[in-house]
Amino acid sequence: MRAVVYSGPKQVAITDVAERPVGPGQVRLKVAFNGICGTDLHEYYAGPIFVPTEPHPLTGEALPVVLGHEFSGTVTEVGSEVTSLVVGDRVTVLPVYSCGECLACQGGRPNVCAKVGFHGLSTDGGMAETTVVDEGMAFKLPDSVSLELGALTEPMAVAYHAVKLGDPDPSGTALVFGAGPIGIGLWFALKGQGIDDVFVVEPSPVRRESIERLGAKTIDPTSVDIPAFIAEHTGGNGVTAAYDAAGVTASVQTALACLGAARTMVSVAIYEKPLETPLIQLVLREARIQGTLCYTADDYRAVIELMAAGHYDTTGWLETIAMDDLVTEGFEALHAGQKMKVLVDPSR
Amino acid sequence: MRAVVYSGPKQVAITDVAERPVGPGQVRLKVAFNGICGTDLHEYYAGPIFVPTEPHPLTGEALPVVLGHEFSGTVTEVGSEVTSLVVGDRVTVLPVYSCGECLACQGGRPNVCAKVGFHGLSTDGGMAETTVVDEGMAFKLPDSVSLELGALTEPMAVAYHAVKLGDPDPSGTALVFGAGPIGIGLWFALKGQGIDDVFVVEPSPVRRESIERLGAKTIDPTSVDIPAFIAEHTGGNGVTAAYDAAGVTASVQTALACLGAARTMVSVAIYEKPLETPLIQLVLREARIQGTLCYTADDYRAVIELMAAGHYDTTGWLETIAMDDLVTEGFEALHAGQKMKVLVDPSR
Ligand SMILES: [Zn+2]
Ligand SMILES: [Zn+2]
Ligand SMILES: [Zn+2]
Ligand SMILES: [Zn+2]
Repeated sequence: MRAVVYSGPKQVAITDVAERPVGPGQVRLKVAFNGICGTDLHEYYAGPIFVPTEPHPLTGEALPVVLGHEFSGTVTEVGSEVTSLVVGDRVTVLPVYSCGECLACQGGRPNVCAKVGFHGLSTDGGMAETTVVDEGMAFKLPDSVSLELGALTEPMAVAYHAVKLGDPDPSGTALVFGAGPIGIGLWFALKGQGIDDVFVVEPSPVRRESIERLGAKTIDPTSVDIPAFIAEHTGGNGVTAAYDAAGVTASVQTALACLGAARTMVSVAIYEKPLETPLIQLVLREARIQGTLCYTADDYRAVIELMAAGHYDTTGWLETIAMDDLVTEGFEALHAGQKMKVLVDPSR
Repeated sequence: MRAVVYSGPKQVAITDVAERPVGPGQVRLKVAFNGICGTDLHEYYAGPIFVPTEPHPLTGEALPVVLGHEFSGTVTEVGSEVTSLVVGDRVTVLPVYSCGECLACQGGRPNVCAKVGFHGLSTDGGMAETTVVDEGMAFKLPDSVSLELGALTEPMAVAYHAVKLGDPDPSGTALVFGAGPIGIGLWFALKGQGIDDVFVVEPSPVRRESIERLGAKTIDPTSVDIPAFIAEHTGGNGVTAAYDAAGVTASVQTALACLGAARTMVSVAIYEKPLETPLIQLVLREARIQGTLCYTADDYRAVIELMAAGHYDTTGWLETIAMDDLVTEGFEALHAGQKMKVLVDPSR
């Protein structure tokens, strides 16, 4: 079958690889769509970062690997001992492997397992005609959820999980920094969790327009004194949660200046270097910065339910490309900021 | 009466001022001891910071003020409507004023009230022969707690409150950065909350020795690779809480590198400028940085109970001076690092 094989920075081959056998408790999926993630870009331009160069402690695998951890597909083969899935089921996949034994796993947080691994990074993933996953990683999609939308479950669950960790108050105001795919996901997740008064801070006019079309209120940080605006808007109480999906000094400093007493800024960005962070703002208001990584099965179920209810609108920010065009129409276009979110169709 | 009147940077006068009247619901205290705090040093060398230059929203007062917010004393006069105190009661004071109306106050966090004020900063304080406080601010000291120890309730409550916000696991390891008075308080509070395995990180040999004499285990950051040591010591799980009372880039970066998954570093320092903070460490382990400010009445009660149980040992780190020696033996000696903690005795 054809697959995207990653072997190092700028080294991806769309080539033929052998299909893996389906073991007990596993299913084979015909991949429908696989999203390109910021993580994939980091691997392509600056990797290997998450892709292991020595055998991964859980998967035992290393470079080269088939990329792709945000995907949907249809079950085409069912291994022994599988009880919840049959051929033909349409599913999305939670691509996390955890050890089950470390303190994090035993505390119900497999997403921060000491040995955490990912389908499509620590072992072959979804940028391929087919892929093999454990039964428990596959979540059935309701009929009303398209396979295209289903492929977005992973990034939308990242955002949904992040929103929960911020503990926003439904009667208060929330701030989102960055209107890329995660910023969009944060906005949808906030709305889905009952937070109505949300402002999205984004310097790019194109991205502001794009999220405004979905119904979001935006702020241009190049022309608005955001802390003053928020103080006025909230009667001096500040926001009840802030989300940094921009990952730059300005977003962190502005977020902390807008935060209410005892409230949370959630960091949901891949910070490439330490940032000048005014920790005194945390002290004076007993506020916090909370990191967030991935999601849990509960987040997947919640996002799929919202998808089934028609909550997510992909108008204007999603596009699908053929697997052969991955580098030019995918990595390079995303890297240049010409596109927002791209799904790969391995059948094309 | 004689008092320490602050009117600006390097401007303190030990001079005669009028005693205030005792209003309804208030009591007058003969001050026994008043601790000098880092905040007082900041006011003296770089203020006014917390001392208001325009009328404070709650006290209506501004410069000049009598300093002193860490004090104990004996009730000498009781106003009308006071029901819980009588002349002769020995008390320590929780020096926080809050509005009772803002979101923080209504959420049970008067310590981060939007208008928060302090006895000894926003109005006349305890560096005086007498001072007048509201009945609810005074906490009776058990017979077994000396007035000297009672004057330490405030800084010990700062540390006690900080420890709680870090949610350390009694079966795990905790790290404290800095062995000044707050670091010492953190160590006592961790022990008092049942956390046995605590390491205090401190570069100064004098300060290390001082806290070691109290029973603490210390680490010299100039000679130990702390993240490697902690990884080894905790079987790769990291610490269950870290406390930064040093307030420098190295302490923050080391603390975050040692933190276990989903765990907390508490910031309990007055950070003078933004620090290069590796937020990616928070993201990858879903960890957090939590600011902490002051304390609540519950913290006061808990600290007083520990004091009554003989938990706090002031051997080697506490000294008392006469009010007239405040600048030379107090501010200047503390600023130069020659002393750890100094109490002012207004009767001398
Ligand atoms: Zn991703
Ligand atoms: Zn694990
Ligand atoms: Zn103080
Ligand atoms: Zn208040």
